[in-house]
Amino acid sequence: MEMQKIYNFSAGPAVLAEDVLKQAAEAAVNYDGHGMSILEMSHRSAPIVDMVTETRQLIRQLLNVPENYKILFLQGGASLQFSMIPMNILKDGETVDYTETGVWSVKAIKEAQRYGNVNVVSSSRESVYNHIQKDFKQSTDQVYLHVTSNNTIYGTQWQKFPEANGFLVGDMSSDIFSRPIDVSQFGVIYAGAQKNMGPAGVTMVIIRDNLIGRSGRDLPAMLDFAIHADKDSMFNTPPVFAIYVVNRTLHWLKALGGVESMHVQNKSKAKFLYDEIERNPLFTSPILVEDRSLMNVPFIFANGGDEPHFLNYCTERGLLTLKGHRSVGGFRASIYNAMPKEGVEALVDAMQNYT
Amino acid sequence: MEMQKIYNFSAGPAVLAEDVLKQAAEAAVNYDGHGMSILEMSHRSAPIVDMVTETRQLIRQLLNVPENYKILFLQGGASLQFSMIPMNILKDGETVDYTETGVWSVKAIKEAQRYGNVNVVSSSRESVYNHIQKDFKQSTDQVYLHVTSNNTIYGTQWQKFPEANGFLVGDMSSDIFSRPIDVSQFGVIYAGAQKNMGPAGVTMVIIRDNLIGRSGRDLPAMLDFAIHADKDSMFNTPPVFAIYVVNRTLHWLKALGGVESMHVQNKSKAKFLYDEIERNPLFTSPILVEDRSLMNVPFIFANGGDEPHFLNYCTERGLLTLKGHRSVGGFRASIYNAMPKEGVEALVDAMQNYT
Repeated sequence: MEMQKIYNFSAGPAVLAEDVLKQAAEAAVNYDGHGMSILEMSHRSAPIVDMVTETRQLIRQLLNVPENYKILFLQGGASLQFSMIPMNILKDGETVDYTETGVWSVKAIKEAQRYGNVNVVSSSRESVYNHIQKDFKQSTDQVYLHVTSNNTIYGTQWQKFPEANGFLVGDMSSDIFSRPIDVSQFGVIYAGAQKNMGPAGVTMVIIRDNLIGRSGRDLPAMLDFAIHADKDSMFNTPPVFAIYVVNRTLHWLKALGGVESMHVQNKSKAKFLYDEIERNPLFTSPILVEDRSLMNVPFIFANGGDEPHFLNYCTERGLLTLKGHRSVGGFRASIYNAMPKEGVEALVDAMQNYT
Repeated sequence: MEMQKIYNFSAGPAVLAEDVLKQAAEAAVNYDGHGMSILEMSHRSAPIVDMVTETRQLIRQLLNVPENYKILFLQGGASLQFSMIPMNILKDGETVDYTETGVWSVKAIKEAQRYGNVNVVSSSRESVYNHIQKDFKQSTDQVYLHVTSNNTIYGTQWQKFPEANGFLVGDMSSDIFSRPIDVSQFGVIYAGAQKNMGPAGVTMVIIRDNLIGRSGRDLPAMLDFAIHADKDSMFNTPPVFAIYVVNRTLHWLKALGGVESMHVQNKSKAKFLYDEIERNPLFTSPILVEDRSLMNVPFIFANGGDEPHFLNYCTERGLLTLKGHRSVGGFRASIYNAMPKEGVEALVDAMQNYT
């Protein structure tokens, strides 16, 4: 009996490339022929230092990160960056603008309020974040403008980033490496790895070097970008295995042609699914067309229906974790970089055959 | 040709049990028959929530943690706890006592100074931490007394913890689960996993529930014990894989008889090595006998010698990472729980045959 092919549409932690997983398993028992598991090896040993250094270089290369930006590997997820970024950058009394495009941006706003004047200059809260409010006025004394590049729960995505009066700060946790970006538009880009880049447990921060230490605050060492930058993310023991899985994922991405090539594939996969949602009278998308995400595709029954029944039907076909976030209901297919086209085709096939 | 058996004496990340590593590798491709890698699975999925819950229960059982203590899984290592603990517990102007037994305690002291009056009541700095200064006077208005239970770099260990005027706070990163402890002596116990418990990337905190929120400070969500306790360490995405490796390590430990049994084995392994250091005229220990660690055993040439030559000689015999910390030099054998007796025997054999 052949095992059923499983496609994992989880919003995060999320699908990773099969080859990457096999390499991770191998490294967990014997890392690169060293006779030790990567889980046992000192972060100060040459093979691990080399691997972490190479991961930074891959990021610099794949995202075309200018030389005046540092690339850091930290812990605590985007959630800790919600605090770390304003605490490291903002001086008391300075002003920042935040765009409110979903729950994660609301959390970022709440944390920033401890460190400066936070203006929420754009919000789609009243329509349950089913679009991005792109027509807004920025503060004239703005230090930075914060955007959540992709909103995992609602399925919206900034297709083009606004020009900031100051500089942009972007939470890219759910669409990093899914498309080309112009890093120089941003002062800081941050991303938890567990959607498009690796497993839970490591957070990437790309920061323009003249912003490090800008706030002048006396910060705990572990919350101070200056210390992490100075120590090449080895101030204390970094999450070695999570960084390794990122390393393998970036090699996989590079072999496939990098972010430009990935973007082409992501557009193709997303179009295939959105086209079916438009075509199929059973389903509809609650999201404004121009803001639709290439990463997370929510859809609902157009005229009501039995949601658990459809989810069970999908599960039987090996199409897993398609339930929408508890705050919005319905269905959500997360189709990150590592979701193969065949997975989207299998889902569309299931939608077409559902009665 | 048989592959040479390798013994990894790294101080951390450090040796893990072979069975644990095999299970980690299996889970990296297919977790518990779910057809998905544990690296890809949502932290909100039932199998992962169950695994994290079971890990907490195992800790409670193995360390006999009283019901009025919370067990948290956090990120950022002991280094972040150096700040989080005083920031969550201490009110402005309150006094705490710290014992200075090595570099890690120095870092803990430095971070605590932001949040209260820190008295360093005991120090062995002048003798390069070759013993623990156990005769000292505590502050009468002390909130807590901080100890580093085992000093990885120097090879000292508190054999018996002092009675605190307030309560004890213990950094047990390098000897947690190596011996029985009386948790009720402590207000907080914390430990990075990467020595005796698992891989880098997760930190365990055991905290008496009436200390949570004690400081009354308005803290960033990710630095607030109250939020992590309230959400069962699922406020944001926890480091799932690292927790899983801890889970497997604790099952392995339990099957071997728990911490009491482990303590017997650790004493036996350490005695075997210390006896050789005493017996062998080539080597000597710089550490006061009564404070010697069961986990990290530093030794030096008694009358000088070629350190790189001995290290190469050991490496050729599959005895790896025996170099002492750069701050003290010489050699150091870290013989945590997962170091088999055979590893210590192989090292002693090498020491006996070295000329």
